[in-house]
Parts: sequence; C-alpha cells; structure tokens
Amino acid sequence: MYKKYRLVVCVEYKGTNYSGWQIQNINDNSIQNIIEKSLFILIKEKIKIFCSSRTDSGVHSIGQIFHFDIYKYININKLLYNINFILPYDISFKWIKYVSSKFHSRYNAISRRYIYIIYNSKIRSSFLNKLVMYFNKDLDIYLMSKSAKFLVGEHDFSSFRSSKCESKNPYKKIFYLNIFKKNNFIFFDIKANSFLYHMVRNIVSCLIMVGTRIYSIYWLKDFLNYKNNKIFNINIVKPYGLYLISVNY
Amino acid sequence: MYKKYRLVVCVEYKGTNYSGWQIQNINDNSIQNIIEKSLFILIKEKIKIFCSSRTDSGVHSIGQIFHFDIYKYININKLLYNINFILPYDISFKWIKYVSSKFHSRYNAISRRYIYIIYNSKIRSSFLNKLVMYFNKDLDIYLMSKSAKFLVGEHDFSSFRSSKCESKNPYKKIFYLNIFKKNNFIFFDIKANSFLYHMVRNIVSCLIMVGTRIYSIYWLKDFLNYKNNKIFNINIVKPYGLYLISVNY
Repeated sequence: MYKKYRLVVCVEYKGTNYSGWQIQNINDNSIQNIIEKSLFILIKEKIKIFCSSRTDSGVHSIGQIFHFDIYKYININKLLYNINFILPYDISFKWIKYVSSKFHSRYNAISRRYIYIIYNSKIRSSFLNKLVMYFNKDLDIYLMSKSAKFLVGEHDFSSFRSSKCESKNPYKKIFYLNIFKKNNFIFFDIKANSFLYHMVRNIVSCLIMVGTRIYSIYWLKDFLNYKNNKIFNINIVKPYGLYLISVNY
Repeated sequence: MYKKYRLVVCVEYKGTNYSGWQIQNINDNSIQNIIEKSLFILIKEKIKIFCSSRTDSGVHSIGQIFHFDIYKYININKLLYNINFILPYDISFKWIKYVSSKFHSRYNAISRRYIYIIYNSKIRSSFLNKLVMYFNKDLDIYLMSKSAKFLVGEHDFSSFRSSKCESKNPYKKIFYLNIFKKNNFIFFDIKANSFLYHMVRNIVSCLIMVGTRIYSIYWLKDFLNYKNNKIFNINIVKPYGLYLISVNY
C-alpha cells in the first residue's frame, strides 16, 4: 500500500464562462475538469478532487474548498505558484495546505456562506455583465429584511428546493440572512449548515417579490410553511449574482 | 437650411473588447462606430459623433462626453431608454441633454480626470482580468506620492508623450495627481486641462519605477526635465487599468 497525502485548497473563480463545478464528461468546461487537468500537468498523477459545495453554471466563488490525494510529497508553495500559470485567468488557487487523511471538504463542513449581489439602478453598468444581477426596479430593503427573518433558524425548506434536488433531508438551519445596500448594490448575505439545490437563488427570488411589493412580508412565512415546491411559480434569479463566500469546518 | 439640434451624451464603456474610441473604417470594432450605428437605427439620420477625449483600445470610461447634431427634434428620455437596448452590454448611455449649437465636447472642455487602477496582490483576482492592471510586487505609495508632486502644475510633458503623439503643444497643466490605496487596489487619480497621447499611462509607468525602488523620487524630476521621449525606455503599463472618469466644462 502506498502512502497517501491529502491536500486542501481554497479556490476563487468567475463562473461566467463555465458549465458549473461538477464534471459531467472528460471534455466538458466544468471547473472541476479544468482544475483536475491542470493539477495532472504539474503533479503527474491522476487527480480526483472533492469540493465542499457544488456550484451551478454561472455561479462564482471566492472561497470554494476542495481536497484531493496524492502519492508523493510535493512542495505546496511551488505548486501554488505554478498552478496559477496553468489555470485560466478566471480560476485562481488562493492557498493550499496539507491536512489529515480524515478531513473531507464536504462532510466536515459545518456551514457555508453565500452572498447574492443585485446591481439596483435605472441605468445598467457596462462593467458588471454576468458578474452580478441587474435589476432596475425599486427594492424595499426594510420589507425584505423583515420578511427574511421568517427563514432564519431550522426549517423544512422544501418550498425553496429545485425539482431536481436529490437531498433526502429538507431540514436546513439558516444562521443568518442579512440584506443591506451599499451604493447601488444590494447584498443578500446568507449562512446555513448546508443548502438544498437552488435554495439561495429561490430565497432571493421570493424576497424580490416582497421587495417590489408584489407580495407581503407574511406571504414568505406562508410560502415556507407550504413545504412544497410545486405550488408557486416564481422566476428564479440568474446564477451570475451568486457567490460562494466561505466554508467553515 | 434645415434647423439643427445639438445633443450631448455621457457614455460609460468597458474598453476591453473594443479597438478604442476612434473609428478607422466603417466595419471596425471602435466604440465610435458602434454608437454611430446604434444611433442611426433609432434616429434614422446619419450621425457623426465628437468626443472629449479619444481613448485607446482597452481603456474604459465612466464619464466620456460626446456631442452630435440631428435635424429633427426627438424625445431624449425615449432615446436614452431605447438606445441601451440596442447598444452592446458593455457600452451604456448614462444621460442625454440638448445643448447650444456652440457647445463642443472637445474644445470647450477645461479639464479631464483619469484614474489608473492597479490590483496589487500576491495572488491575482479571478474577476478583474482586463478590468484593472495586476501587479504582484510591493509598491511604496509614499515614494510614488512624493515623486508625483514634481509633475503637478504646468510643464512641458514631452518626456511622457508617445512617439505617435500629434499634439503641437507639449505644455499641459496637471491640477492634481493623488495616489492612494484601498484594500488591494492602488489608484492614480489625475486631473489636467488635457493630456498628450499615452501621457497618463507613461506617468504611471514611471511612478511604478519609483514605487518598486528601481529609481529614486528625484529621478522623475530629471525625467520630466529632459523634455524628450527618446532617452528612456520603460515598459508602458497596460491600457486595461485606465478609466476616463469625468470631463469638466
């Protein structure tokens, strides 16, 4: 039996031009595929990486965490320096560490933090296409914040899951959901133990219905209590506004 | 003789994917060409636009000003609303006004303000490619600020002009040149009555030589006093860091 070494990496990426985190086939444009191929070039071992939170096509990250095993000891400072020359400009390793072989980036994570960003202005920005979501109507921060309070805590979030969600357990615990505005940007800052598929984007989509006064503050409470994603039909916000910020262990 | 109406526009653009402001031929990828063609679609008159400051390929703007004439009176609110649907996502009109036919966006401008942005970090950002200049070495803000003071005021800036510069008068007046850091970003904020071709980028290039301690604070004073762009050979910084901020009249 060969000795294995486990490495953990923090990676930042602009998701705009990728098919999402997860590899579907050996030639796809997934972030996982690009990273595995780039690591192979430097380490010369076939690498399989495991991330904390799979992100959709168009979703960005400044704090995605993944781990992988190698069979020879390598200098991680050199690896960090060299890998960013091989990776495309919109995927960058921020740090690399050796960890215990018991560490698992997904199963050991106790919380994930996401931020959804809306550029809220009458005139679009020429610089932010597919980096944030552009929304030109007024959004009432106070109403959205009031409404968001119903979601904080442990609940059955079935109302906010995609029909493609495969999770067996719809109970998740939201630690906080803060909404704030800075200049023309509105931030939805949310931390939970974990999330159902499309849960963050579905929550933001619902909060926009409240912020534009289409539905009341209390509508969101009822929506949560339906515990069913088949009743309501709301347009889901674009993936481009969503950033995976950090993962806690 | 038909009555003419003069309109003035403030336009924001990400220069990354364009050949620069000025049209060279009818099918080029210049910002001027894209705007003239888009205006023609809505106004149905052949439009020729005149800007305050021609920007190079890759240079951005949040406050470029241009004017043009039309032969029928139109609703400018409607024009503003509709033009941003026709223009590509990285060129956006911010406002439109009617002005006197004596107004000229270039000849009436009394000052231009540019900001050059450096992302100064050991690790690049995955989101800022061709939006700012990435520089991974330490830059001493204090040394650059001290050195920059020699340039403020009216001087013959021949040392900082491109060999392609066609301006007859090398005397320009810099009102201020402030250098400051915020998080990992370094800003070179410069305002002058007008600029020679490549003058801002050449100044930033020289200040980097001071900030990295390759040359002293006083070297820049000597450089200015040579009044000749043929003596020194410094790599010019990329256009991607440069933003035209505003034009005063």
